Amino acid sequence: MGKGKARKAIITAAVTGSIHTPTMSPYLPVTPEQLIADILSVHEAGGAVAHLHVRDPQTGLPNADQDIYREVASEVKRRCDIVLCTTTGGKLGESVENRSQVVANLQPELASLNAGSLNFALFHVAGQHQEWRHDWEKAYLEATEDYIFPNTFYTMRRFLEIMRPFETKPEFEIYDVGMINNLAHLIQAGHVKTPVYLQFVMGILGGIPATVDNLVYLVQTAQRQIGDFQWSVCAAGRFQFPMTTHALLMGGNARVGLEDNLYLERGVLAKSSGEQVAKLIRIARELGIEPATPDEAREILGLKGLDKVNY
Amino acid sequence: MGKGKARKAIITAAVTGSIHTPTMSPYLPVTPEQLIADILSVHEAGGAVAHLHVRDPQTGLPNADQDIYREVASEVKRRCDIVLCTTTGGKLGESVENRSQVVANLQPELASLNAGSLNFALFHVAGQHQEWRHDWEKAYLEATEDYIFPNTFYTMRRFLEIMRPFETKPEFEIYDVGMINNLAHLIQAGHVKTPVYLQFVMGILGGIPATVDNLVYLVQTAQRQIGDFQWSVCAAGRFQFPMTTHALLMGGNARVGLEDNLYLERGVLAKSSGEQVAKLIRIARELGIEPATPDEAREILGLKGLDKVNY
Amino acid sequence: MGKGKARKAIITAAVTGSIHTPTMSPYLPVTPEQLIADILSVHEAGGAVAHLHVRDPQTGLPNADQDIYREVASEVKRRCDIVLCTTTGGKLGESVENRSQVVANLQPELASLNAGSLNFALFHVAGQHQEWRHDWEKAYLEATEDYIFPNTFYTMRRFLEIMRPFETKPEFEIYDVGMINNLAHLIQAGHVKTPVYLQFVMGILGGIPATVDNLVYLVQTAQRQIGDFQWSVCAAGRFQFPMTTHALLMGGNARVGLEDNLYLERGVLAKSSGEQVAKLIRIARELGIEPATPDEAREILGLKGLDKVNY
Amino acid sequence: MGKGKARKAIITAAVTGSIHTPTMSPYLPVTPEQLIADILSVHEAGGAVAHLHVRDPQTGLPNADQDIYREVASEVKRRCDIVLCTTTGGKLGESVENRSQVVANLQPELASLNAGSLNFALFHVAGQHQEWRHDWEKAYLEATEDYIFPNTFYTMRRFLEIMRPFETKPEFEIYDVGMINNLAHLIQAGHVKTPVYLQFVMGILGGIPATVDNLVYLVQTAQRQIGDFQWSVCAAGRFQFPMTTHALLMGGNARVGLEDNLYLERGVLAKSSGEQVAKLIRIARELGIEPATPDEAREILGLKGLDKVNY
Repeated sequence: MGKGKARKAIITAAVTGSIHTPTMSPYLPVTPEQLIADILSVHEAGGAVAHLHVRDPQTGLPNADQDIYREVASEVKRRCDIVLCTTTGGKLGESVENRSQVVANLQPELASLNAGSLNFALFHVAGQHQEWRHDWEKAYLEATEDYIFPNTFYTMRRFLEIMRPFETKPEFEIYDVGMINNLAHLIQAGHVKTPVYLQFVMGILGGIPATVDNLVYLVQTAQRQIGDFQWSVCAAGRFQFPMTTHALLMGGNARVGLEDNLYLERGVLAKSSGEQVAKLIRIARELGIEPATPDEAREILGLKGLDKVNY
Repeated sequence: MGKGKARKAIITAAVTGSIHTPTMSPYLPVTPEQLIADILSVHEAGGAVAHLHVRDPQTGLPNADQDIYREVASEVKRRCDIVLCTTTGGKLGESVENRSQVVANLQPELASLNAGSLNFALFHVAGQHQEWRHDWEKAYLEATEDYIFPNTFYTMRRFLEIMRPFETKPEFEIYDVGMINNLAHLIQAGHVKTPVYLQFVMGILGGIPATVDNLVYLVQTAQRQIGDFQWSVCAAGRFQFPMTTHALLMGGNARVGLEDNLYLERGVLAKSSGEQVAKLIRIARELGIEPATPDEAREILGLKGLDKVNY
Repeated sequence: MGKGKARKAIITAAVTGSIHTPTMSPYLPVTPEQLIADILSVHEAGGAVAHLHVRDPQTGLPNADQDIYREVASEVKRRCDIVLCTTTGGKLGESVENRSQVVANLQPELASLNAGSLNFALFHVAGQHQEWRHDWEKAYLEATEDYIFPNTFYTMRRFLEIMRPFETKPEFEIYDVGMINNLAHLIQAGHVKTPVYLQFVMGILGGIPATVDNLVYLVQTAQRQIGDFQWSVCAAGRFQFPMTTHALLMGGNARVGLEDNLYLERGVLAKSSGEQVAKLIRIARELGIEPATPDEAREILGLKGLDKVNY
Repeated sequence: MGKGKARKAIITAAVTGSIHTPTMSPYLPVTPEQLIADILSVHEAGGAVAHLHVRDPQTGLPNADQDIYREVASEVKRRCDIVLCTTTGGKLGESVENRSQVVANLQPELASLNAGSLNFALFHVAGQHQEWRHDWEKAYLEATEDYIFPNTFYTMRRFLEIMRPFETKPEFEIYDVGMINNLAHLIQAGHVKTPVYLQFVMGILGGIPATVDNLVYLVQTAQRQIGDFQWSVCAAGRFQFPMTTHALLMGGNARVGLEDNLYLERGVLAKSSGEQVAKLIRIARELGIEPATPDEAREILGLKGLDKVNY
């Protein structure tokens, strides 16, 4: 076993998302300042990509405020070279048109593209707290018993049409096996070119559970149906570190961050997404894997470059 | 290898569904008389269960006409003892309330219960015909590019509440791996008791493709997550006989019928769902498997009996 | 679904092998005449390949008598164009040198090459009979509790060297997952060229059990590790028709015959290997698959042709 | 995510084995003193079990010297409470009788029991060195091209009979999928009781390769065929840390040590098995898993206790 070059893996962090609510953790970033600080913590810890949602600074309610997106993205760009991947999922219940605005406005290097519709349920955690910091939180969670995350074939085709002129690369969020076939259909129909970038999102109630069996099966299925792709994994809650570690060992990339999991270890809240990034990188290095820099991530994914964004 | 009792498998036929349109086959049953005739062909061929949707007799458009349901069910009951499994999926776009009416009205032994939401897409076949018998057909298919088949956790819970007092057994339609987890969640929350009955629906664009790899994985997953269940498979189009044959060999049950596939073999339209049942039974018998009678199916599935339906 | 050309599948029959003993079935071919008749029954029924072992005509004990091999092969060639695949496994306990003789002598189109060593155990069936037709039978079966079927890397390399000058194509017998890796190693080391032909042998005690899960896994593994190959399945005893039917549906080929299974259905002994071939072809045709003729099999497998054998 | 008790995993180290040769690493323990020191390094680092082979102190050639076994075991016992698991595999080519001697003599708490026969090939690494410290090394490795590791059903039954009166628990070494079935057969025949303890040995040329796909499949298969068991993984060479990390995340136990891998990381030889144990425990702790103490391992595996060994 000679001394060779370590494999580079892209570490992404999703800093706030639209799943967790302020009551769940005081460290969940909500204001632009908090979002910026959390993204910088990710960069400093060695993360190459930050996945970005925004929220109402007063209430913490997820929204699609274009000014906040711009404020956060611009300041982050001023201070570091991290890749920004904006959401097109938006808050639960957001209209499709609103969900795509951020792409046209910021013209980011990377944006999520959810590869199918599914129940996206959080109602089962609404009983974990007795007191809530904000009025909306409990109702927001409970409403998901009747919620579908809508990503029809039309939506997907539209998002691809919107991203194409800006050379924003889609990161396909895969929540279940059939969504790989959805993507294969889009590729075959000429709506998107390979290599594609897949994010396997595991452990959402409504999607595929976060087990290594399922991860192996997703990767095998993508190999058969897509062939040419890069991939990453994120997983809900306590499955975050197990599943991302599996992914790194399997040759994939990994996403952590407070969107997916609020904890650093059992019973210990993470103070930032950067803390989670640092922990995953410690594990990676024990296993001979180095985190890709933002520029290495750009090369691996074939991104257009930070000079071509509109922020 | 001693001479022993052959295994009994439940052969179901879905006679019309809401996927195929009249232009696609002159044999697709549309009127009450045609539906009755097709169900009787199923019974005569050895099928134990008929899965029932209804349509507008003039246009063939899928609907939820309660009078037609009653007319078909009553006449079928007068003439044979087949188990009826009514849909709660209804036509594409039907409201949830309308979808459940048939259960309260007919109080059938068995009714479908779709175990999650997904894109349910037929738009890719809209180009297969130049001329259409009815105005609605092409638009109906094309509209599915933006269609989600909505089955939230709330919907599922409601359907279970509606079925419970009538002792109508749910047949859980599973379109992807995560839906097994949806069902596990409902079981754990006490909304439904095991043993449950699963119908793996494979090959719908939006759900899991119809491959033996996927079927094996679905069954393995159900064994891990549900434990105690019976199962059946249906598959779209040309995958009907391959997947149902695999299922019979794996110890499962099988659904054929014109809802799922209009053909008997390559290039030959099936003249009835009964023709498909007869073909599958020929295969089954070569493999040492006998079709269950309707009463044997009742015993296997623990159904309440034909004397307790309201038709 | 247009009318197209049916897929062609190669049906092989292994007519006698070295596993079953005369007491187990009066139809097990033992003498040259019986072997010839059984092979002709295979050809007549639509089989393309016959897999050949020979036995002592008096006692039925498997042996490696080169005169019998020649007698059977020549007469079969005189009467039909079936492909002969001679064993290089020989009887249990045969020396490696004796096992390869038949290749040099007959220079057949196809010969088996067992891709690894394993326990090959039959002792657990020695209790099924009280009376035995021949002295050797019970002891032969019982001795397998301490038996290894020896196929080292050296053996494999030697067999390949022996076959190469005669353009005899190896049919790699795969009894477990690791043997696919053995073969990948031989390919990588330049000892054999792709495309290779694999026979998955399932259900031998000592090897991988005959389940569809395992078959799917073997095929997936071969796709990952070998890439370019044709494959077939055979399975012991009552798993013969289930596994070969799965294989046909999965795009593979299938081997039946009295070596693998003495029965036609539960409790009914097969009167010839041809009866089993006929049954499998009935199933295949229901599923839209046609048996390849011997010449079609030659083309699919890239065989040298019947004019280049030495019998 | 409340603060709860961490999962305990058994970390085993195999300190010398019979695969590696002295030329490959100056740290490979060969003399009794070196073996004792390496085992103590394992214990100090947090390992609970040491797997023990012995070698000729002069030449490093693996042997079965009963005096050395006793010397090492006694001194280890005098100095710490680690569980010893003696091999019954012995050196390559050792007779079955010699392989079992150590069980009768030392009556250890745990002993390996190889669950089937396979090619066990090291010849492909014989070209990695030009100069060898000892005469025997190159020939020893090259000879494995024609080597089978013999573990027939008779051998397995005998080993179980030998272990039973001493209450030595077998650790079943599983090199491929079919060996799980071998063990299921032994259980069904009453030769061994569940729960059993499985060591999946991955990455030996001749056995199943060291991939996560294969590990998942082995565990799934054991769940279906054995049901009640504990399991561990070891893997050859550079697969050691990836596969053992996967195993810990999957709820299994893990074996490291210089028998399996001579390196600590790419290009860096491990100075002791204890170094590898320490590294794996660092990874485990990042993932919320604590190493079991020897006594906790005894409880998990149901061992008889250190007071009942004969050393």
